Amino acid sequence: MANLTEQERAKLLDSIRDVKDFPKEGIVFKDITTLLNNPEALDILMSHLESRYRGYNLDFIVGIDARGFIFGSILADRLKVGFVPARKRGKLPYRTISESYSLEYGSDEVEIHLDAFRGIDGAKVLVIDDLIATGGTAGAVVNLVKRAGGVAVESCFIVELKFLSGRERVASPIYSVLSY
Amino acid sequence: MANLTEQERAKLLDSIRDVKDFPKEGIVFKDITTLLNNPEALDILMSHLESRYRGYNLDFIVGIDARGFIFGSILADRLKVGFVPARKRGKLPYRTISESYSLEYGSDEVEIHLDAFRGIDGAKVLVIDDLIATGGTAGAVVNLVKRAGGVAVESCFIVELKFLSGRERVASPIYSVLSY
Repeated sequence: MANLTEQERAKLLDSIRDVKDFPKEGIVFKDITTLLNNPEALDILMSHLESRYRGYNLDFIVGIDARGFIFGSILADRLKVGFVPARKRGKLPYRTISESYSLEYGSDEVEIHLDAFRGIDGAKVLVIDDLIATGGTAGAVVNLVKRAGGVAVESCFIVELKFLSGRERVASPIYSVLSY
Repeated sequence: MANLTEQERAKLLDSIRDVKDFPKEGIVFKDITTLLNNPEALDILMSHLESRYRGYNLDFIVGIDARGFIFGSILADRLKVGFVPARKRGKLPYRTISESYSLEYGSDEVEIHLDAFRGIDGAKVLVIDDLIATGGTAGAVVNLVKRAGGVAVESCFIVELKFLSGRERVASPIYSVLSY
């Protein structure tokens, strides 16, 4: 597994835009759309993830609605494994299992299809999202993976906001490419 | 550009699941999650699209929120071009342009970032989504591409519901892989 070089890491950090006061005042949002529309930066990132996970013998990658779909599906395509979307409540058409998690105010729910892992018992699964903040969504998705018969071998995030300690809510090993 | 063989087309059709009465009674929903978690089917589809669009010299691929992100980002990665998400209102953090379109009851709005095409005037853009039904969303996204300075050289859909005549609302050439 190849680590990022310092030059590659600098290119990735440069490609992510800070947007102040989004989604509300006082928050600095890490905008990864400027990484996505930069093919050189996107290839650096995805080649790094491909190299990291090539040896994991994954069966499925679960991407979290909606930006996790982007990184998760590219990685699934590169590794030639199945892609599974974890979606907000009511978006998946077939029989689902769901898990709720708490937000700053109130709660939300995330779902996967009951047969997402095609009956493969103990399927090796990587969970992926663009960002881990408080860890509520990712923690719920890791629980869903277990309930659907899979093993969450790792959860991967492009950006981790360390000061929010989100990884403590996620019952799997964690890997983040960049952290703040 | 290679066409799908009859065997490949049959595999793709087999990999898509019909779900009755979703999102409401009387509708048969084309569930592409069973294509996504089938690496062989997904590779057949993406290799076909890669072969089709290799010669288009695209600058960007615009994927429509949220299933369009999956196919669009894989294709952008394979062709090594930028990926741009078109999102529902309020999801993009930076300055956006937006376009509304009518639904059966009421209307909805879709947005892209104002600088999505990185200042490349006349950028060659492919718009992609999983499905075209009435064509409202795709038509609005094609209009956004033009307003952001791009040229929508084609709009691509994995599934087209022909009886809804959605392509008439989209001001670009259309390609659909499968149609019903």
